[in-house]
Amino acid sequence: MNKKYKVGIVGATGAVGQEVIKLLFQRNFPMESLTLLASSRSAGKEIKFEDKTFIVEEAKPESFEKLDIAIFSAGGTPSKELVPECAKRGCIAIDNSSAFRMDPNVPLIVPEVNPHAIKNHKNIIANPNCTTAISLMALYPLHKKFGLKRFFAATYQAVSGTGVAAMEELKSQMKAIVDGTEPQVNVYPYQIAYNVLPHVDVFLDNDYTKEEMKMLNETRKILELPDILNSTTCVRVPVMRAHSVAINAEFERPVSVEEARKAISEFSGAELVDEPADKKYPMPLHFQCKEKCGVGRIRKDLAFENGLSFWVAGDQLWKGAALNAVQIAELIASQK
Amino acid sequence: MNKKYKVGIVGATGAVGQEVIKLLFQRNFPMESLTLLASSRSAGKEIKFEDKTFIVEEAKPESFEKLDIAIFSAGGTPSKELVPECAKRGCIAIDNSSAFRMDPNVPLIVPEVNPHAIKNHKNIIANPNCTTAISLMALYPLHKKFGLKRFFAATYQAVSGTGVAAMEELKSQMKAIVDGTEPQVNVYPYQIAYNVLPHVDVFLDNDYTKEEMKMLNETRKILELPDILNSTTCVRVPVMRAHSVAINAEFERPVSVEEARKAISEFSGAELVDEPADKKYPMPLHFQCKEKCGVGRIRKDLAFENGLSFWVAGDQLWKGAALNAVQIAELIASQK
Repeated sequence: MNKKYKVGIVGATGAVGQEVIKLLFQRNFPMESLTLLASSRSAGKEIKFEDKTFIVEEAKPESFEKLDIAIFSAGGTPSKELVPECAKRGCIAIDNSSAFRMDPNVPLIVPEVNPHAIKNHKNIIANPNCTTAISLMALYPLHKKFGLKRFFAATYQAVSGTGVAAMEELKSQMKAIVDGTEPQVNVYPYQIAYNVLPHVDVFLDNDYTKEEMKMLNETRKILELPDILNSTTCVRVPVMRAHSVAINAEFERPVSVEEARKAISEFSGAELVDEPADKKYPMPLHFQCKEKCGVGRIRKDLAFENGLSFWVAGDQLWKGAALNAVQIAELIASQK
Repeated sequence: MNKKYKVGIVGATGAVGQEVIKLLFQRNFPMESLTLLASSRSAGKEIKFEDKTFIVEEAKPESFEKLDIAIFSAGGTPSKELVPECAKRGCIAIDNSSAFRMDPNVPLIVPEVNPHAIKNHKNIIANPNCTTAISLMALYPLHKKFGLKRFFAATYQAVSGTGVAAMEELKSQMKAIVDGTEPQVNVYPYQIAYNVLPHVDVFLDNDYTKEEMKMLNETRKILELPDILNSTTCVRVPVMRAHSVAINAEFERPVSVEEARKAISEFSGAELVDEPADKKYPMPLHFQCKEKCGVGRIRKDLAFENGLSFWVAGDQLWKGAALNAVQIAELIASQK
């Protein structure tokens, strides 16, 4: 239990990588060393965190020889290339990309939900998609209580999910609108300020986006419920860094709003914010930089026999990415 | 057919009233005269439209004696007081508020959907809620084709639905953020810039909002299908004036995406924008000041046997309010 780890972060200069650094220190992860890795383009860059200065190194297969755990948040292509190299060298890869999530040999872990699934890992552990992880902070405790059968979800996704460039683009478009100039569009196919885009990630043959199918496939894998039905619409909204999701869920057993609120309030990953009479409900602006996801607007669903409607908001960069990855590292550390 | 009408607008200085003026002229409604009415606070105010200048008069019971048709967009309280006075004086009231929508003696009309229902009006005709009218531009043609049974909806509602003050508040909050000052919050309970609020209209005893229940109750009345099931989550987003809605719908009969697209493209109230491979889908920014509502993202629903998922965007001030009201006036004119 007193082992200290040589930790690496691949994609250390990105939006998620930066939060991983912050959370590793903030949560006192037992580190012997921290190595920041990135593409050759960022190699040599200085990153300061509190009183420490790190020099970014180029991520190469050999980089992992000297590490125990590496957290990857550099996107699918670097993960596909380097995660197997990392694992081969005996370093545990915690991968934020979608590259290995559906691989039957790779556990897909949300520590509050399926920590047991980590035990057979082969040095690769996948971190779920942001909307899935955040939605599960409501779906899982309700599933335990009532037995989840089917759910519909519509998302309100922040631009942080696309990365630093998208956050800068939203800011610069807002400034252009305020200044009365033409907003520049580079990161998204259309202006995101004053707009919403029903389009997150690429379109697949069934006309769903890859992001929408992640909600179905990853939820099935994490909950070990291969028959769950789900249809999701993923929408990008002009919000900086917390996602929200509106969910209608059908359960096996009769539901009660009171019991649902109790189940949420007792669950470690959620904070119940559900006093509609006092205008209290979770909002993305209040759930930035919060470890827990907010759950509220819980009510009897009017179109399902045993159904609940509810609303979740959570920090995309934290529970949706960096925090869940650091929690996986903590789970590894707790099992030694 | 050549009759010309003495038309009045109650709430002429509001966001919807302004659009009613524009649309009456733009669509060449046969007017003998146009009288602009508002609260005593706005009386005497000058309103210019193109080369015409109108002086706003105070709306009083006697105001309707000299009018044939009055379009009310002043909110529930003035409507409750003045609509019956208007009707009593033989002037047909087209009411944008929710005050009379569920009254069994008052037809609730969407001209593309249930024009026949206007025939027994007693000088009061209700205009539906914005989210209902916009959603029906997709739901109705699909209902005709496949037989609607049940639907789930999550909305992305523009601030125009709250009125001019909310549009100004979003602008001023954006300016404050760009300037690095504290955004002022007056109209909504929380900041709307960079945020979304799962709260539109007041909360009811069942923890749904009044806005959410309108979708269920008004859809049942307009489609004359009292058994339709629906559960909706209404969310305010930082968009200026067009609403969007994500819908999962279940039908009586087997569905096909191709037939659904054909039904939408043949329907007068909708524009099909559904070429995901070319990143073509409806967005609020593209459906401002458009008469038709955009429908796209049509796909087989993955959680319903005979289901479709789709996305609608439409101008809240137009199809969601002013345009539908003017279309009702045109329906009245066409029947003389």
